[in-house]
Amino acid sequence: MTRIDVPAREGRGVRVAAGQRFRVIDVEGGQVADTFAFRADDVSEYHSAEHTRVHVNRLFPRPGEQFVTNHRRPILRLESDDTPGIHDMLCAACDPERYTGLGVEGWHASCRENLERAMAELGEPAIEIPQPINLFMNIPVLDGGALGWEPAPTRAGDSVTLRAEIDCYVVVSACPQDIVAINAKNPTPIAIELLG
Amino acid sequence: MTRIDVPAREGRGVRVAAGQRFRVIDVEGGQVADTFAFRADDVSEYHSAEHTRVHVNRLFPRPGEQFVTNHRRPILRLESDDTPGIHDMLCAACDPERYTGLGVEGWHASCRENLERAMAELGEPAIEIPQPINLFMNIPVLDGGALGWEPAPTRAGDSVTLRAEIDCYVVVSACPQDIVAINAKNPTPIAIELLG
Repeated sequence: MTRIDVPAREGRGVRVAAGQRFRVIDVEGGQVADTFAFRADDVSEYHSAEHTRVHVNRLFPRPGEQFVTNHRRPILRLESDDTPGIHDMLCAACDPERYTGLGVEGWHASCRENLERAMAELGEPAIEIPQPINLFMNIPVLDGGALGWEPAPTRAGDSVTLRAEIDCYVVVSACPQDIVAINAKNPTPIAIELLG
Repeated sequence: MTRIDVPAREGRGVRVAAGQRFRVIDVEGGQVADTFAFRADDVSEYHSAEHTRVHVNRLFPRPGEQFVTNHRRPILRLESDDTPGIHDMLCAACDPERYTGLGVEGWHASCRENLERAMAELGEPAIEIPQPINLFMNIPVLDGGALGWEPAPTRAGDSVTLRAEIDCYVVVSACPQDIVAINAKNPTPIAIELLG
């Protein structure tokens, strides 16, 4: 079994073969993991939140259901979930413009830059930025369509297990957000375990 | 005042200058209008549903609020809304794969192809397919995160007024969906009125 440690505020990518399973683990708890998947032989096809919502008729798949691409092809399957079952698929990855808008002066690590760096290291420097699968992220939809921004409810060691449905690149970013409350203002690491 | 008729199941595009307002009108009522906006001088920047949700902290902007791009720049402003106020920004544009999945054999018109054709006619054949602003579309978020697929509640002549915040291309597709209930299985026309 291969374990990839994703340090706090950083991202890591890995190629996963069709049929292979992997766990995304919230090592210390309360940490959001922005997760992305691209088709390995053509990265212009990638996980799409808006196509997945239509595919499963839900805001987020349930265990046993699949995430699909912008061509409606299954790319990941949510095999199991030992967390409280709260995840987000509504919010864009944080990016330099987000931190500027939140009043940060100078550079701040972001999931967008973590994704770009990880994909460049995998040999794919030219990518679209998909809307991420925000594992462990707690964005309740309130009455009238307002969104809440709540701390991730995961405990240390909580994880989800995903299976690749096609050969793909998977990138996980340990979200560096420390201005709003989603990581309790204390970004911590994530780990990826590649299973059989 | 310029009026652009969008026939049932078709799409039309137009260049709109910063500051210009336009109305999108549901001519006969009960019809979804998939609406897209691209920055005119660089179409790799376009309206982004996932960035807009973060910008307004809601599933859909309210009158007076803005839609932003994938670089978090305001691109459209929802000036006024004389409909029941029900719109969707969760679902991908329908596309050939969607109709295949719904059991349609052979070609079926789709909002994706309508967008691609309209943008090609505007001189922009190479575009990403953004998640649309689905005006008049009724996709309730139910308990537990399930999505409903309900007929559009608009009456004949209902409209929203938008203002371009930057020079942009706007495309509106009169959604050809006639398998699920969103257009009451009877696609009808849309109109765009360019105001001052």
